Order: sequence, then structure tokens, then C-alpha cells
Amino acid sequence: MKRIGILGGMGPAATILLMQRIMAATQAADDADHIPLIVDQNTQVPSRIARLIDGRGADPAPVLVAMAQRLEQAGAQALAMPCNTAHHYAADIARAVRIPFIDMVALSVARARSLTGTRVGVIGSPALRQIGLYDRALAQAGLTPAFPPDQDALLAAIRQIKATGPTAATRATLIRASSDLLELGARVQIIACTEFSLIADATAPGAQAFDTLDVLTAAICTFASRSDRA
Amino acid sequence: MKRIGILGGMGPAATILLMQRIMAATQAADDADHIPLIVDQNTQVPSRIARLIDGRGADPAPVLVAMAQRLEQAGAQALAMPCNTAHHYAADIARAVRIPFIDMVALSVARARSLTGTRVGVIGSPALRQIGLYDRALAQAGLTPAFPPDQDALLAAIRQIKATGPTAATRATLIRASSDLLELGARVQIIACTEFSLIADATAPGAQAFDTLDVLTAAICTFASRSDRA
Repeated sequence: MKRIGILGGMGPAATILLMQRIMAATQAADDADHIPLIVDQNTQVPSRIARLIDGRGADPAPVLVAMAQRLEQAGAQALAMPCNTAHHYAADIARAVRIPFIDMVALSVARARSLTGTRVGVIGSPALRQIGLYDRALAQAGLTPAFPPDQDALLAAIRQIKATGPTAATRATLIRASSDLLELGARVQIIACTEFSLIADATAPGAQAFDTLDVLTAAICTFASRSDRA
Repeated sequence: MKRIGILGGMGPAATILLMQRIMAATQAADDADHIPLIVDQNTQVPSRIARLIDGRGADPAPVLVAMAQRLEQAGAQALAMPCNTAHHYAADIARAVRIPFIDMVALSVARARSLTGTRVGVIGSPALRQIGLYDRALAQAGLTPAFPPDQDALLAAIRQIKATGPTAATRATLIRASSDLLELGARVQIIACTEFSLIADATAPGAQAFDTLDVLTAAICTFASRSDRA
């Protein structure tokens, strides 16, 4: 079984959730049947939102690159990062190591493409919209992105979840965003913030939503169980 | 904030539980307020139970030493290991690194000593009893260990939790063990298996039980927040 390095801590609860989902996705009779991970639960990565939205604070890129290299040195055979916004730095990370980077954004766009509908809703942080990460990836796949109109509400919900965990109000925000996307004609919807993965079922009836963290979980399990000769 | 290295994966659910308890014990308004961790979720450590009870299988010691050294190289400023039985190898680990090893067994015995009662129940794996780890540590503290008579039931419960997670039957086993210890005169009881930490509330009425994983969590939080000059 291959060992996966996790660039984590963005936020820490999302990283723990990924670890739980990887365990839940594994048929196991004992410890050894579970996928080995090396998790850098680095809560000290400079804020992606501060840097990308507010243009202040330290650059996360060199910190993420150093984490990736440390994980590779520690024996990781592939890397994954349960934070959509941080995928802004995916190319920097991939260039810095010799092992594969399992790209959650690319895989999620591929998943969206397999579903029916060319207008795809993206429910994530305003930073994600601002950097155009999903816009470009969806456009390359022949898909058109749609974003919930009330981006401020999404940011407030993310900050709330990071501070206190999910609340009824944050669930309501997510349902509202999903409902607004349906009105914009986007039935296929990507839950593109791993804070929202904690409440990924909070979508509008009729939406065909999926969680980027589930996409990442499946890819990690596939990679880890692939034989070395494959 | 100091970075703690976790020798994990024994089992993986207990390691995730430790991460959750560390988060829950931290007052945080954003990611950066949480304690940074490097977690080696190593599910491939040779079975401690197989080696110590059955006398078969590979020696876990060199694997644990290598994990500790990798965590130190990756920037950990202290080490912790959420597995009581693996503390059989604590001295090997501590000798192999320059950073402190936060010893869950030593801290749990100190906690037991602070409570009223000299006969202390130890609820853990039969391997733990066999290696005399708590016997020695409790004796040095002037305390007398007591073990639940039905050790086979405890082993079966641990294996069940590792395979499927907690069940009603595993909870019943833990309550019975706790009740048996009360009859042996051990009101102070140590939940000394991190699989049992998943159901640590399953003790008999009247028992003064505490969970070794809670003791470890508190020590990690204290160490991480200590200033470097302290």
C-alpha cells in the first residue's frame, strides 16, 4: 500500500475529515489494511484568503513548497491537499517534488464533466472566485462556471466554521447558495471548500452536488492501492 | 506555538480521535490558533499484540525509532504516541531523538496518583498486562495495579473496534471490565487502550475512570503553548 502525504491544516477540521473519509472508504480487518498517511497538520500556513482577497500577509507558496518537500523526504509517494483555494499554488508544489500531486481541482472538474449540464456551480470561498481557479479549469473542459451571488455570506460562513464548527446558520447559507445556483441554471454543483465539506449535505433539493473532498478521497484510495508495477 | 510529532496509526481511528481532542481543547478564532502537528499515520507498524503476546511477527521497535527520527527531521519539537501498548518501546524512541517524548503512560500514572485510592485498575490490551508496563510504573508511584479478570474479552473488543469501530458489545465488555475492577477494590481506573478511548464513557457507575488519551491531549496542549524561554 502506498503512503500519501497530506498538506493539511487548511483548516485542521477539514484535514481530519479527509482522514476519516479515507478510513471509511477502506475495507479493513486490522490497522494494517488502512492507508498509511503522513499528515502535515500545519495550522501556520499564511492565510490564503488574506493574501488573495485582501492582498496582505505572507506568501503561502514557499511554506507549501517546503511542506511538500518535507513530506516527500519523509517517504510520501504522492501528495494531496484538502483545501481548494490553496490549489492556486498547485503548480508551485508539483514543480518542487518528484512524486505526483493528486490535484483535487482537476479531478473535481473531470467529475463535473461526467455529469449532465454544462453550467457548473462552484460553492467556495470568494478567494477561489477571485483567482479564477475553477473558471479556467472548467473552461478547458468546455464547461461554464456559475457562482452564488452572495459571496460575502459564503466568506462569513467559512470564517464561522473555522472558528466554531458548523452551525444552523452556516448550513442555511450553503442551502441558499445552492438554491441561487439552481436559479442560475446550474444543477451540477461543486462543493469547493473543505470547510463546507463538513456540511456537504446542506444543498437545495434538485441540485446535483458533489463534494471535492469525496473526489479527493476516492483518488487517494485508488492511488494508494495501485500496485507499484501499474 | 510548538509543533508536535505524532507516532500514529496504532490504530488510525485513535490517532484521528487525538487530533479531534487537541482541536476541541483549543480556543481558536482561525486556523492559526490551532496546534500544528505532524502526524505519521503509519498503519504498517508491525502488530504490537502479535509480537508481545504471540511472540511472532516483526519487531516494531526499529519502525517506531525510524518514525520518531523522521518526525524530528520534519520539524517536530516534541513527540507523542497515542497507543499505550507501544509505550513498551518508549525508551527506544526517547533515546533515538533529541526532542522530548511526551510519555502517556508516565503521565497517566501521575494522574492516578493524584486521585484517592492506591489500587488502580488498568483497562487495556492483554499485551499491556503481559509486558508489565503499568505494573512497574504504578509500583514506582506506590500504587498497586488491578486488571480485569476477563482479558480475552478485552482483546476481542480491541480487535472488533479495529475492524468495525465500536459496537454495543464492545461497550458492554468495557462496562463489565470496569465493574469487575470495582469488585476488586479498584475505584480509580485507567482507560489504557486508545481503541477504548472511542468508548471511554462506557464504565461502571461509581468508578473514577479517566482516559489516557485525555491525559495525553492535555500534555500536548500544555507543551505546545509553552513559550520557548520557559
